[in-house]
Amino acid sequence: MTKPEAHIRLAIDAMGSDLGPNEVLEGVALAIDRVPRNTNFILFGKKKDLEPIVLSNSILSNSKVEIVHCSEVVGMEEKPIAGIKGKKNSSMSLALQSLKEGEADALLSCGNTGCLMAGGAIKLRTLEGVERPALCTIWPGRERYFTLLDAGANPHAKPFHIVQSAVLGSNYARVALGLVRPKVGLLTIGTEEGKGNEVIHETHSMLKDIDGSIINYAGLIEGFQIFENVVDVVVCDGFVGNIVLKACESLSKLIGTFLDEELRRNTLRKTGALLSKGAFRSLKQRINPEQFGGAPLLGLTKNVIKAHGSSNRNHISGAVKIALDLVQHDMLTQVSQDIQEANEILRPEPLTNR
Amino acid sequence: MTKPEAHIRLAIDAMGSDLGPNEVLEGVALAIDRVPRNTNFILFGKKKDLEPIVLSNSILSNSKVEIVHCSEVVGMEEKPIAGIKGKKNSSMSLALQSLKEGEADALLSCGNTGCLMAGGAIKLRTLEGVERPALCTIWPGRERYFTLLDAGANPHAKPFHIVQSAVLGSNYARVALGLVRPKVGLLTIGTEEGKGNEVIHETHSMLKDIDGSIINYAGLIEGFQIFENVVDVVVCDGFVGNIVLKACESLSKLIGTFLDEELRRNTLRKTGALLSKGAFRSLKQRINPEQFGGAPLLGLTKNVIKAHGSSNRNHISGAVKIALDLVQHDMLTQVSQDIQEANEILRPEPLTNR
Repeated sequence: MTKPEAHIRLAIDAMGSDLGPNEVLEGVALAIDRVPRNTNFILFGKKKDLEPIVLSNSILSNSKVEIVHCSEVVGMEEKPIAGIKGKKNSSMSLALQSLKEGEADALLSCGNTGCLMAGGAIKLRTLEGVERPALCTIWPGRERYFTLLDAGANPHAKPFHIVQSAVLGSNYARVALGLVRPKVGLLTIGTEEGKGNEVIHETHSMLKDIDGSIINYAGLIEGFQIFENVVDVVVCDGFVGNIVLKACESLSKLIGTFLDEELRRNTLRKTGALLSKGAFRSLKQRINPEQFGGAPLLGLTKNVIKAHGSSNRNHISGAVKIALDLVQHDMLTQVSQDIQEANEILRPEPLTNR
Repeated sequence: MTKPEAHIRLAIDAMGSDLGPNEVLEGVALAIDRVPRNTNFILFGKKKDLEPIVLSNSILSNSKVEIVHCSEVVGMEEKPIAGIKGKKNSSMSLALQSLKEGEADALLSCGNTGCLMAGGAIKLRTLEGVERPALCTIWPGRERYFTLLDAGANPHAKPFHIVQSAVLGSNYARVALGLVRPKVGLLTIGTEEGKGNEVIHETHSMLKDIDGSIINYAGLIEGFQIFENVVDVVVCDGFVGNIVLKACESLSKLIGTFLDEELRRNTLRKTGALLSKGAFRSLKQRINPEQFGGAPLLGLTKNVIKAHGSSNRNHISGAVKIALDLVQHDMLTQVSQDIQEANEILRPEPLTNR
């Protein structure tokens, strides 16, 4: 279902990138070519930093781009609650506020993840019936991309939260990967019944209860199956998901470093590397796909997309595309319906005492 | 402390490898060149399979190699308890039995991991004061190797179990990596106090209590720091450890496949790859180091080493070296002392009701 062609307003927290606001704005400019004409961008950040960039860039200055001055910036080292509550005039806070007040349809930020998650939860709240938000990442698999969540929004997950993540992730996989019935797998150790731990047993049983109309549950999967495209949506709690995500990201960087070192070890290898340099470039792009430069924080009342602090302009452009997709497909409405249906099955009694 | 030059007897479960008993025995033959003369090998398996291999291999037939006939083999698909209890005459069961009865000092098996862990726990029991065994793996880091445990022996870990893993892993890092005071890190998400979950908070506090004489605790680490050699011993529960291990193993295989595909895409790339093929060989060896072909199941009364089902002869030879190191350094005695000391600090009351 595509939303009719109303104005789409994207809030951009322009200050949180490791590469500075220029890279973020270059990413927005790249995206502008590919977004619908009716898209407005609201840039949150220091006017003295942003204005010269916009004015010197003909794509930005000729587009529907507005700057909202924010006197503060949330730093990468700030603690979640303190960073948000202590800096009410930061680009992140004010951008979240504009989402809350309906002035924007989606927010993209490369800033401090903890602060963005805390800010999202505090300012925007979760959708009715959703207990915890979940951060949903897209990964490259052997044959195609897949989603993994929760990548760290909720490290104290109960089975019910993980089940809701499955519903959230299925909706995102439909929008971002274009799948009709994405297969969901629950990440565990050993796939025989009885293996894993109590959280897994309970979650597995609840996922089976909502299998069918709400999600397409394919059962338990192990760590070695993640990249094998056995499923399209890998669900796990935020503790496991965050560790696996960060370990895998840093392992692929390490392999890149090792490869680089080995290729420079002598002249013969260097010559070979020069001839096949196209292969290394393609490899990098396959492992770190720029079109999926953003990870949505699912389960909130609004669309919030987190991009990596180190995102380049291509990643930012990819993240803008994701933000637009979520708005255009009106994912929030579908998520709300699915969550209500799942809750009716899993928790038929009125939800009063939680 | 090196054990005096008594006989060392290694039990080898010769039947569990995906590549068949020949590869296991070739690995033993490779190792024989490098082990002390006083090492005896006891091969457990089907006599009709093993005898021809030993007789046709001059290294094996000229060494202290004995075959113990076992009529059964534990399959890769068998369930842990059933595989061990149902097949009392399997090479794995009889090899464990020989350890239990003091006929061997260490056991090496490439067989079914679940069965080996169950068999170790049932037949050998844990060392006095140790509540749960832990599987300890060695990984390549940016500058040097490090250990990670528990890789899956105990998926229901309580803080006390994770703390004991830290003690076990420190001892193994001393022996296998030659470190005097290996640094221990607790794997979590976010390293500020208060992040993570309750298990992490409690474990962190207990690790601080035994920091100093028993372990060298360096604090919390995140997933992206695993490979950065921030610490030498990464501890986590068996659920997280198993998932991270398997995800990382399969990711490095996937990157290998992607690289291979990209290098074959056209003639120029193929030519380059041919010139730099030495680099790819070195890369593979750095990521999958053969000298650490085995992972010990720590915390048992005896030395049990698990090798990958797909181990080649070089990995087997590496695993034999690990088994010998554990025996020669008399790691079990040191572990017992450290565990007693840690328990006196953490649980000063008599351990009766657990």
